[in-house]
Amino acid sequence: MRHGGVLPEVDIVYETWGRLTPARDNALLLLTGLSPSAHAASSAEDPSPGWWEEMVGPGKAIDTERFFVVCVNSLGSPHGSTGPASIDARTGRRYGITFPVLTIEDIAATAHEALRAIGLTQLRAVVGPSLGGMSALAYAILFPDDVDNLVTISSAARATPFAIAIRSVQREAIRSDPEWKGGSYEPPAAPVTGLRLARKLGLITYRSAAEWRQRFRRERTADRDDGLFGIEFEVEAYLEMHARRFVGSFDANCYLYLSRSMDLFDVAEHGGTVEAGLSRIKARRTLVIGVTTDFLFPLDQQEEIAAVLNGLGREAHFVPLSSLQGHDSFLVDMDRFCPAIGDFLARA
Amino acid sequence: MRHGGVLPEVDIVYETWGRLTPARDNALLLLTGLSPSAHAASSAEDPSPGWWEEMVGPGKAIDTERFFVVCVNSLGSPHGSTGPASIDARTGRRYGITFPVLTIEDIAATAHEALRAIGLTQLRAVVGPSLGGMSALAYAILFPDDVDNLVTISSAARATPFAIAIRSVQREAIRSDPEWKGGSYEPPAAPVTGLRLARKLGLITYRSAAEWRQRFRRERTADRDDGLFGIEFEVEAYLEMHARRFVGSFDANCYLYLSRSMDLFDVAEHGGTVEAGLSRIKARRTLVIGVTTDFLFPLDQQEEIAAVLNGLGREAHFVPLSSLQGHDSFLVDMDRFCPAIGDFLARA
Repeated sequence: MRHGGVLPEVDIVYETWGRLTPARDNALLLLTGLSPSAHAASSAEDPSPGWWEEMVGPGKAIDTERFFVVCVNSLGSPHGSTGPASIDARTGRRYGITFPVLTIEDIAATAHEALRAIGLTQLRAVVGPSLGGMSALAYAILFPDDVDNLVTISSAARATPFAIAIRSVQREAIRSDPEWKGGSYEPPAAPVTGLRLARKLGLITYRSAAEWRQRFRRERTADRDDGLFGIEFEVEAYLEMHARRFVGSFDANCYLYLSRSMDLFDVAEHGGTVEAGLSRIKARRTLVIGVTTDFLFPLDQQEEIAAVLNGLGREAHFVPLSSLQGHDSFLVDMDRFCPAIGDFLARA
Repeated sequence: MRHGGVLPEVDIVYETWGRLTPARDNALLLLTGLSPSAHAASSAEDPSPGWWEEMVGPGKAIDTERFFVVCVNSLGSPHGSTGPASIDARTGRRYGITFPVLTIEDIAATAHEALRAIGLTQLRAVVGPSLGGMSALAYAILFPDDVDNLVTISSAARATPFAIAIRSVQREAIRSDPEWKGGSYEPPAAPVTGLRLARKLGLITYRSAAEWRQRFRRERTADRDDGLFGIEFEVEAYLEMHARRFVGSFDANCYLYLSRSMDLFDVAEHGGTVEAGLSRIKARRTLVIGVTTDFLFPLDQQEEIAAVLNGLGREAHFVPLSSLQGHDSFLVDMDRFCPAIGDFLARA
């Protein structure tokens, strides 16, 4: 692991769509945000909708008739790949907080190893939103000869102090929950109160104030919570519904590790400056998409990536989108995102 | 109380600076944000610096050689005025969460009652930042004949769903702390963990991402916390320092009540629409100041107040300031705020 420590064995879960050409020249790697699994889209084997159902499929922007799409579940995730919720074969117990410090580079390196194991090194494209965009940048920096086209979405070359502060408070909410037990809780027991708070704060930073003013205004909720200071406004009911859904499906220690990996990410560690780090990327073409209403990964951070690459003489396209849904727009505003990604990949 | 319930007796703490003219025509009421006390500036009686030391004093923007300044500590505060931390004379115990629902209008009405008790009804000016700006609006709506000049700073005619969401998560952090005990904790025991989280989230929303990028960048702290996921970045050390200071000086139940009062505030309750509510204001002149980097009380909310008043034919000045420090700028960026307020009051 980049910051020390060893994992004696690693599972990396992935799903694929489409067919690999005999020349093995149409592979597209998809890296995910903090919470999604490898199930980006439905398939014959798993017909349930994926987290990017409208983006990935036959004839869609990430066209599975053209690309052999591989979505890799990040190292550290609770959705199948090895992480803090996995059993450490050396002890027979869950890693918990004995898991080594996780970095974005570790996520990229294990994704690379998984692809190598199935004979895929040359990638027509690597695509990643949010944390996945950081992983895509790391992938292109660590394995520059493997990536032909690079797409980073609502991401950053390094975390801002604002984003670090938000995530630090989210982690403290989990760590402050007595049920966290210093990281040694045993499922089904879990620090659900802390995880719920972390998720609610996450939701606030994933959307935009402008969207919520249109959507919730000052509406009161019908499901009013009787308790003092309980749920009264629609926006509070919305946070509660999503938080409840999340705590049942995500491990708290995994959340802590993946959250911190974003804080630690800094392209400047690969050469001394952001410019030097990004100069390692050899992708022939890069697409950098950002959203005007994103305040967690603000637009100027996307502009920086594209500007630096352009300054290095690379072909980099900066596409700012005026979506209303903030950081999460790539999951919601398909009318803007599908053409932006589809047009770029059509010429990949 | 506006939403029901009775307080059998109420103390309202205030401090004054300057001298009242024989004609009693130079009184200026200062209403405060969520956390400050009535000690806005130092005085012979209390030489410690006040929360707006650079703004209030002889020859300063709020000139105590000219105005008789009265700063009132809000109903609900732990700093002397009656609130959840006070003893209920009927039971001999702290109110805690038996305190009735608190509204901004209750804060304004009790401030008015305190002034009436000392023979002050005609006010040359009412000035308030943040929650205090809401209280100032409420004062001018409830007692239209009493207010000659009105100054609202980084405030709003009603809370946005984004601000409600942030405050809801802050309150949930306090309510989730087992030490809160359903509101019945007995000092010195207190839900300090929850209050600390609430304060950290508050700090994040009181400043701006742009300021922190300049100020903290990605600096690591020297006082590194040994624990996993502990304090590593300067911005985390900054949050920790301020949160520790706060939990020792603020009561958690008071925080909950004052926080909710901002969510509940809506000028539209005074007539059906924001326009109808603001039309009750008879102040001869109004100054509305906002800050471009404030995302808790965004600039367009200040612009709305001024635009509506102008639309009603009132003299209202909208002053947008490009301070870097977000919502808290009125406490920090005195180079911009002192002239803006001083120039307006000079002609009051």
